[in-house]
Amino acid sequence: MATEPKKIIIDTDPGIDDAMAIFVALESPEVEVIGLTTIYGNVYTTLATRNALHLLDIAGRTDIPVAEGSHVTITKGTKLRIADFVHGTDGLGNQNFPAPNGKPIEQNAADFLVQQASLYPGKITVVALGPLTNIALAIQSDPDFVKNIGQIVVLGGAFSVNGNVNPAAEANIFGDPDAADIVFTSGADVLAVGINVTHQVVLTDFDRDELAKSNGKYAKYLDKILGVYFGYHHEAYSTKGVYLHDPTALLAAVDPSLITYTEGVVRVQTNGITRGLTLFYNKQKRFGEVTEWSDKPSVKVAVTVDAPRVLKLVMERLINS
Amino acid sequence: MATEPKKIIIDTDPGIDDAMAIFVALESPEVEVIGLTTIYGNVYTTLATRNALHLLDIAGRTDIPVAEGSHVTITKGTKLRIADFVHGTDGLGNQNFPAPNGKPIEQNAADFLVQQASLYPGKITVVALGPLTNIALAIQSDPDFVKNIGQIVVLGGAFSVNGNVNPAAEANIFGDPDAADIVFTSGADVLAVGINVTHQVVLTDFDRDELAKSNGKYAKYLDKILGVYFGYHHEAYSTKGVYLHDPTALLAAVDPSLITYTEGVVRVQTNGITRGLTLFYNKQKRFGEVTEWSDKPSVKVAVTVDAPRVLKLVMERLINS
Repeated sequence: MATEPKKIIIDTDPGIDDAMAIFVALESPEVEVIGLTTIYGNVYTTLATRNALHLLDIAGRTDIPVAEGSHVTITKGTKLRIADFVHGTDGLGNQNFPAPNGKPIEQNAADFLVQQASLYPGKITVVALGPLTNIALAIQSDPDFVKNIGQIVVLGGAFSVNGNVNPAAEANIFGDPDAADIVFTSGADVLAVGINVTHQVVLTDFDRDELAKSNGKYAKYLDKILGVYFGYHHEAYSTKGVYLHDPTALLAAVDPSLITYTEGVVRVQTNGITRGLTLFYNKQKRFGEVTEWSDKPSVKVAVTVDAPRVLKLVMERLINS
Repeated sequence: MATEPKKIIIDTDPGIDDAMAIFVALESPEVEVIGLTTIYGNVYTTLATRNALHLLDIAGRTDIPVAEGSHVTITKGTKLRIADFVHGTDGLGNQNFPAPNGKPIEQNAADFLVQQASLYPGKITVVALGPLTNIALAIQSDPDFVKNIGQIVVLGGAFSVNGNVNPAAEANIFGDPDAADIVFTSGADVLAVGINVTHQVVLTDFDRDELAKSNGKYAKYLDKILGVYFGYHHEAYSTKGVYLHDPTALLAAVDPSLITYTEGVVRVQTNGITRGLTLFYNKQKRFGEVTEWSDKPSVKVAVTVDAPRVLKLVMERLINS
């Protein structure tokens, strides 16, 4: 009766909630993490790679390969926006952690994604927790990637709600809007989990106390790094808690029954004041004119999430290990 | 106890639902229509002027001045989008009506708006049923217009829903996005009634039969011209009815208790694939960075509408006159 665990690759810019998502993934029997690929976003790519290796040290999982990703957006020359004010200058709560023991593999992230997808056609889920540059590069470098990859779960977008970089744009899409538009219109099986959904999943002060009290190695580690993340949320949102963006997207890949979704065409605005905006076309109106959404493949966009169950899974998997 | 009726100027591109809104206004004792100004949109401006004069002939209200508005967008050189496929090539259901008896006044629309606002400071509501070029020109030509005008009720925008020109943009905002951005950020008292609200107000086949059966002069006239409008809605939306965009915005000006609204900053995307998109910032998140919404004045954006009461008012005022 044992079903084979789903193979996942986490594309990540750790990042405090990335750390949580990676730890939850490693403690999820439903999935097998076959690699981490790194990207700029919460930190620059070089530091994302260092942090990914460091987190695998903490987990005792240095067997998992880390492939370093792009240092620049897909359209060269865009100034990167690095969210160090959310995660600390080191991306992990300013804890001055030691250098990791491991090293990234020689292969870059896009090549690793292409290779793994072709080795296990239809079997791999990419969970993309940062800007989508690596995924877009994989799509551009191999015409078969879109059919070889099982699913791409994107943490990104702000569907019918305000963004978190500015009123129009969510951070991961804003990080590389051109790459995001390539991914959304690629024809791959894409599930977008936007902040309209992840803002429903809040880890409170009380939950953090529970983590601190436990003897779990992840729980103790996370309690240390969460201070900066809580501080940012209090400033920006007046919340007594933090949004679990990355763990929510990760768990949507682990257990699709945690969310519901709708289907339609998503395009990304790549310039002007709403640069980074995700615009979902629900196909209800038939436009007489050809639009920029016409004849583009549909993607899935998460609409609801079972927030209590996501939070319960996160807490259980972090505390009991 | 008699309160003075509210003075309104209707900026209009008639237009089948414009005709309904104008007739409802003329039969609303709460308001006094002190002028019509014309604009391109459903038809070109020249035809909008002709139709406005014709509708005043039908109403027997040739005492009301018509001021012709702009023939071009505020940023010159933009190709106009004329919605003749919604309203007929004549804008009024292809009925081949005779030429009007009256003529527009010498003053253009923007000058008329500026003059009337300065004559009755704080007393005039502009109900803008087309692209916002005339209003933006009035704002640009007189620094006092923004404080002299009482309120600007804008039929326009698609807030958190798909547009009706394409998935991003509503027709009136798409018609002149630069003008709309000027109006929304002007500091005037602006109430936007978007298609997220007007799509809740549907005149059905049954209601149309009621109009046809009545002896009201407006009802009989409208029954003739509504065929084209019903046909378009059936094609585009599969609805057995038509959206009452313009009458809803007009009645929101006549009786503000028909709607509820929220307040925040609205900016308009003026280029790219989401050109004409209205992006509302609800001020919930405090952004660390300066955004294009920072330090801009707030406007009101309609959220709910008492659709049954709007429909009832429209029917009563069209049938009983």
